[in-house]
Amino acid sequence: MSKLWSKMALRADPYIPGEQIDGKGIIKLNTNENPYPPSPHVAEAITQELDRKLNLYPSPTADSLRETIAVHHQLRPENVFIGNGSDEVLAFAFMAFFDPGKAIRFPAITYSFYPVYARLFDIPYETVPLARDFSITTCSFFQSDGGVIFPNPNAPTGIYLELEHIADIAKNNAGTVVIIDEAYIDFAGESAVSLINTYDNLLIVQTMSKSRSLAGLRIGYALGNAKLIEALTRIKNSFNSYTLDRLAIVGAEAAIRDQQYFAQQVERIVQTREWVTKRLKQNGFTVLPSQANFIFANHYKLSAKLLYEKLKRNGVLVRYFDKPEIDNYLRITIGTDTAMTVFFEKLGAVIAELVKDGVHARV
Amino acid sequence: MSKLWSKMALRADPYIPGEQIDGKGIIKLNTNENPYPPSPHVAEAITQELDRKLNLYPSPTADSLRETIAVHHQLRPENVFIGNGSDEVLAFAFMAFFDPGKAIRFPAITYSFYPVYARLFDIPYETVPLARDFSITTCSFFQSDGGVIFPNPNAPTGIYLELEHIADIAKNNAGTVVIIDEAYIDFAGESAVSLINTYDNLLIVQTMSKSRSLAGLRIGYALGNAKLIEALTRIKNSFNSYTLDRLAIVGAEAAIRDQQYFAQQVERIVQTREWVTKRLKQNGFTVLPSQANFIFANHYKLSAKLLYEKLKRNGVLVRYFDKPEIDNYLRITIGTDTAMTVFFEKLGAVIAELVKDGVHARV
Repeated sequence: MSKLWSKMALRADPYIPGEQIDGKGIIKLNTNENPYPPSPHVAEAITQELDRKLNLYPSPTADSLRETIAVHHQLRPENVFIGNGSDEVLAFAFMAFFDPGKAIRFPAITYSFYPVYARLFDIPYETVPLARDFSITTCSFFQSDGGVIFPNPNAPTGIYLELEHIADIAKNNAGTVVIIDEAYIDFAGESAVSLINTYDNLLIVQTMSKSRSLAGLRIGYALGNAKLIEALTRIKNSFNSYTLDRLAIVGAEAAIRDQQYFAQQVERIVQTREWVTKRLKQNGFTVLPSQANFIFANHYKLSAKLLYEKLKRNGVLVRYFDKPEIDNYLRITIGTDTAMTVFFEKLGAVIAELVKDGVHARV
Repeated sequence: MSKLWSKMALRADPYIPGEQIDGKGIIKLNTNENPYPPSPHVAEAITQELDRKLNLYPSPTADSLRETIAVHHQLRPENVFIGNGSDEVLAFAFMAFFDPGKAIRFPAITYSFYPVYARLFDIPYETVPLARDFSITTCSFFQSDGGVIFPNPNAPTGIYLELEHIADIAKNNAGTVVIIDEAYIDFAGESAVSLINTYDNLLIVQTMSKSRSLAGLRIGYALGNAKLIEALTRIKNSFNSYTLDRLAIVGAEAAIRDQQYFAQQVERIVQTREWVTKRLKQNGFTVLPSQANFIFANHYKLSAKLLYEKLKRNGVLVRYFDKPEIDNYLRITIGTDTAMTVFFEKLGAVIAELVKDGVHARV
């Protein structure tokens, strides 16, 4: 702390991302990255662009990428806003649609960046408890004072909410913006993008960090009514004219265009998720019904914190949240089949060791 | 406008960057880009990184790049904050150090993004007139209420302020932060980085878009006391965990390391600036003493607006600001010698045509 900090810096309570340990032989299942590389066309496009004009600014509106994303979603470019990762898009959305003095609503168990944004921009919020099965109770999001935001599928639960419920929430918040954060939608059911022409207050946020294997390139986008997109563009142009570099723009375009590769990788991850779920259950875990590229699971008698620590010491990183209601769960990203096989070997050894030592107690 | 916009979106008054026309044969001298490509090591480093892990998140703190920048400036990593272009760094600095209710101060003629940030974050500001020769009057920046920001060299004038004056301003604003935006410092005198150990309220912002030829890759950074850097980091981590992608990080490192290439390109641009200045004077222009990679000039009888428009129609883009006091000036980026030779051919033809048509009047 310092006397030179602004009120905003003083009240900020930063988000803590999953550890980024880059050691050899580490099985990294803690930040929901895609274990497969992006489409080979991504590197080709970037290599071509490298020969061009890195000394010149990129397009401030990334028009070619906007057009590509619009076509992919059967929208017009004025329905698309692109940012430097979906976290930046979410930050701009908090600035563009939520106001100090009007409480927004999000689930009590959800992406932990939402309260961080709210605090930064001094936006009050109410958290809505999930049902006992961790599902979202739709009507508790009706008639919000300042707006609504939640991920679909929700994180870290992985549970998907059917579109009719999204429509209901949008309909019952006519005067405020409802943001659906679809970071994991490609591993799940249908996107709510189809609803944006019906609900002018519905903003869909997607990322290329998960299903498109481009976490390292930083691209996210929002889809919505042109008036919502205009507000995001105003904020962005009051903040940073050029948020995407030239290489990210062409790489993202190539990834969106390679639909076949995309579909194959998503299918592989979904298949792995299914057998991992089955084996976790065989190992004594309860597993929430995930439609994402991760699994949220708790062991019937071993403490999640202890499992997390022991796995880490054995070179396997999963995510543990030291928070009420979920402090006995592990969030496990779906890796390659090979990585998940190693994961189960290590997990088996850890469980055997703990049981042998007589360590049963939960926290 | 829309009933769904936040107060922030409603009051935002976005920055308008220079036109990004990418046509063949266009001489683009309007956004202060470097006309030379970056060091060849940049593309090499990026090509190597492409083979690695685009599917994994980058380092949220870009530690390897921070270390490289710190060593280059003879500082420690905790004195370095890196962002997605210096505009993003400036936006975070407005958030971290300036407060609603306390007026900040910047020159009446300066980088036009400052009032845009101030408006976005609801920070009041006072503009301080420049002297008749467009230089900064140091004492008028003493004892500011909320802080001080200006570029050195100033934009769009190109005029450099000696370090003793920067020290005076920092000393006479002990309770608030003084931000020196050194986007063009490498084409000028000494950086104020040497003062940050003496003044804990002094923040220096630099960019790799100009002297390092990386406008297309988006990297800027701030240098200052560790407490100031900590505030920027808190804001950034409450906004977007990963602002720099993997390719930008390694490309920027390679650029910083190739000191010889950097020095050569800067020297070329400075030499071109000198002959361009001389020839502009021969063509009837008054030229401010620039220490940047651009020149600010006005013609003794022809209207700047008319010259701007005619040049544009002839395929030469320069920057024109329709603002009081500077609406008879053109800001001309220093291009390659070849580009500047073409520029003078086109300029000569435009002037001859205007004189022949009897168009002399200024606006």
